[in-house]
Amino acid sequence: MGRTMFEPVFRDIFPFWNEISEDDRDFICKNTFALTYPKGTTIHDGNECSGVILVRSGSLRLYIMSDDGKDVTLYRLHDGDMCMLSASCVLQSITFDVMVDAEENSECYVISGPAYAAVSEHNPNIKIFTLETAVSRFSDVMWVMQQILFMSMDKRLSIFLSDEAARTGSDYIALTHEQIARYIGSAREVVSRMLKYFSNEGIVEVSRKGIKIIDKSRLRELTL
Amino acid sequence: MGRTMFEPVFRDIFPFWNEISEDDRDFICKNTFALTYPKGTTIHDGNECSGVILVRSGSLRLYIMSDDGKDVTLYRLHDGDMCMLSASCVLQSITFDVMVDAEENSECYVISGPAYAAVSEHNPNIKIFTLETAVSRFSDVMWVMQQILFMSMDKRLSIFLSDEAARTGSDYIALTHEQIARYIGSAREVVSRMLKYFSNEGIVEVSRKGIKIIDKSRLRELTL
Repeated sequence: MGRTMFEPVFRDIFPFWNEISEDDRDFICKNTFALTYPKGTTIHDGNECSGVILVRSGSLRLYIMSDDGKDVTLYRLHDGDMCMLSASCVLQSITFDVMVDAEENSECYVISGPAYAAVSEHNPNIKIFTLETAVSRFSDVMWVMQQILFMSMDKRLSIFLSDEAARTGSDYIALTHEQIARYIGSAREVVSRMLKYFSNEGIVEVSRKGIKIIDKSRLRELTL
Repeated sequence: MGRTMFEPVFRDIFPFWNEISEDDRDFICKNTFALTYPKGTTIHDGNECSGVILVRSGSLRLYIMSDDGKDVTLYRLHDGDMCMLSASCVLQSITFDVMVDAEENSECYVISGPAYAAVSEHNPNIKIFTLETAVSRFSDVMWVMQQILFMSMDKRLSIFLSDEAARTGSDYIALTHEQIARYIGSAREVVSRMLKYFSNEGIVEVSRKGIKIIDKSRLRELTL
């Protein structure tokens, strides 16, 4: 049953699928679980091996957290994205801990870490795919780092608002200042101050429920 | 001639060396160059493909730079370390630009990027080694990011001074405040202020030539 459910998806997602043996395909499917995480669940916490997570619907947020609870978003995963950093037993060279939360109700296929690692042990192409997926996330994280380190706050905030509007297809951003601060690696106070400035400039309208983009072209200018 | 010079080193460094064909080994050696970079040289600048760099002596610094010239050190490479991020034609999934400087006069073996990529095309184990090297640097970079994002300045500075003393085997750190600020991703003013504080506390002595560690055990306490 697992086989018929997972196989068509894995064939689409994994470039190595048709190159590995029937037995290996079977073994992976038998060790895969369809799980639905309610919005707000912490799916992965630190360096345990939670397995390889394939997102089918919803949204996962990957972030790092300091001892005193401050967190910074690294990236988010949506439909069709794969999370490898949650499988520390698969990627031995990853020595840092990430957290993964479900931001919305999220349906996922989770492949057991040890099972995936066992099959990849005798299939170099799986190893290559896994490492390439991790390395491409390295690029995402570097982007975040450059944003945080180098970019002025008005630019960071305007890029976030533009991206969010494009992603959701709406000019209305239903997030708190606190949430936005976390996404862009800043503090709530700083975000509130900058939003007030944007609002005074007639670029956005700020209400208790969220932020509405009023002047798209001026917002776009700020992102440049 | 290249073969006799490079082969013993490559045999030690590359776990795949004995698994690839005689022709491939020959091809890699023929496309390797022994280069000495004088202190201060920029070896790699952005996203060109400068090749795979193996450090034989000296020290290379990898860093990212903003449009306005601010830079942050990601890590440093010493004898026996390998630089993969300088070979963008080898690692297609790396989409960010790094800079590499020689911090001291540095002897390196540089393997042409296209030659290395060509050989790795039909040797999965080379690909795996290359990606694993890159992924382990991902962990280094995450460490830097966490330092910058989460750690208080006194802790960052004391860790830097301790590490530097341990690395050079000397209690004397011959760096300017500006240089230290760059290493720890801060501003010169902030470093000077914190060094003045350390100096008032009798932990270090600050002179024009550099910083001398006076009270090692107190410095160690600050790193915890």
